[in-house]
Amino acid sequence: MGTTVKLDTKTALLQAGKEIMLEKGYSNTGIQEVLTAVGVPKGSFYHYFDSKEDFALRIIEYADQMYGVKLASILKSSDVTPLNRLKNYCKEGKKNLTEQECGGGCLIGNLSQEMSDQSETLRKALDTVMSRWKEHFTQCILEGQKAGEINNAWSATKMAEFFLSSWEGTLMRAKSIKSVEPVNIFIDLMFNHILKTK
Amino acid sequence: MGTTVKLDTKTALLQAGKEIMLEKGYSNTGIQEVLTAVGVPKGSFYHYFDSKEDFALRIIEYADQMYGVKLASILKSSDVTPLNRLKNYCKEGKKNLTEQECGGGCLIGNLSQEMSDQSETLRKALDTVMSRWKEHFTQCILEGQKAGEINNAWSATKMAEFFLSSWEGTLMRAKSIKSVEPVNIFIDLMFNHILKTK
Repeated sequence: MGTTVKLDTKTALLQAGKEIMLEKGYSNTGIQEVLTAVGVPKGSFYHYFDSKEDFALRIIEYADQMYGVKLASILKSSDVTPLNRLKNYCKEGKKNLTEQECGGGCLIGNLSQEMSDQSETLRKALDTVMSRWKEHFTQCILEGQKAGEINNAWSATKMAEFFLSSWEGTLMRAKSIKSVEPVNIFIDLMFNHILKTK
Repeated sequence: MGTTVKLDTKTALLQAGKEIMLEKGYSNTGIQEVLTAVGVPKGSFYHYFDSKEDFALRIIEYADQMYGVKLASILKSSDVTPLNRLKNYCKEGKKNLTEQECGGGCLIGNLSQEMSDQSETLRKALDTVMSRWKEHFTQCILEGQKAGEINNAWSATKMAEFFLSSWEGTLMRAKSIKSVEPVNIFIDLMFNHILKTK
């Protein structure tokens, strides 16, 4: 029983931390705010995490686990063609952004933007996650290229890098102008032009 | 004389604030750090700025003025074709990023990512600046389309939105992986594929 409760508290702290950090960023997130949200005393926090940076590292891992499963289920779905998997990924992203009223965006992208010059430890962890995600995109694009469904004039790695970078920038713009219009334009250009076979 | 000195102090505070905020973001920038960098007492700060948010607003205006001149000089250069002006913009961005050792990036983009959900006042100011920049890109793309130099299957507004969003995401990725490779890929795909006429 003791172990179960401990696991729950840790997960609750990670979940609350993930939500608050998605909204406010790393620097703006106070440990006290997370503790209040979960309803546990300060001692609990330092039982599980060494520091705020360590907490962020665990949040990045936690987000990666949750998001990684979702990402793989979309990008590896064998019932759907590779190009349509990528489309489904964008549709899902647009749905989430709409639900968040064009706020939040991508935790990993947000933290990369905010923390890459501030903490080499966080930068490396974020880079590792993003590289793994990029690998999913590369595989999916490669499959689409082999099937003659995706433009093969550029390597799948390059296409995946461009897809991911552009997508992250698109989420940032949508947050900034509080509209999904940049996402609509991304989807239009990406699927009706950039990835399209000649 | 008095006026000149006052103006210099204010500009020095804005310049130091711009540099520190580019590196650290809004939340992580301490007023004291800015004061120390410039070598003026706290009273001076509140003589010129009402609050940290007000300081950030003035930094955004200041950055916009400086950057806006540079942007216009590149994107409106009549000696260069529209497509080559866009290329020059990217080359300039790559040069800056290399000089910054893939740190910093774009102040307006960074603050948009960090502050859009935190301060409606800053979000609106950032949106205004970015919209003005987008207008420069739109005009340049439109000119290139009219000259038959840029793909006209999509409106110049859509192309400009995509160019800007993707570029911002590319800078974020370059910061995150500490490499200009995403910028090279952006330039390759943008100029050899996306903007290219059929």
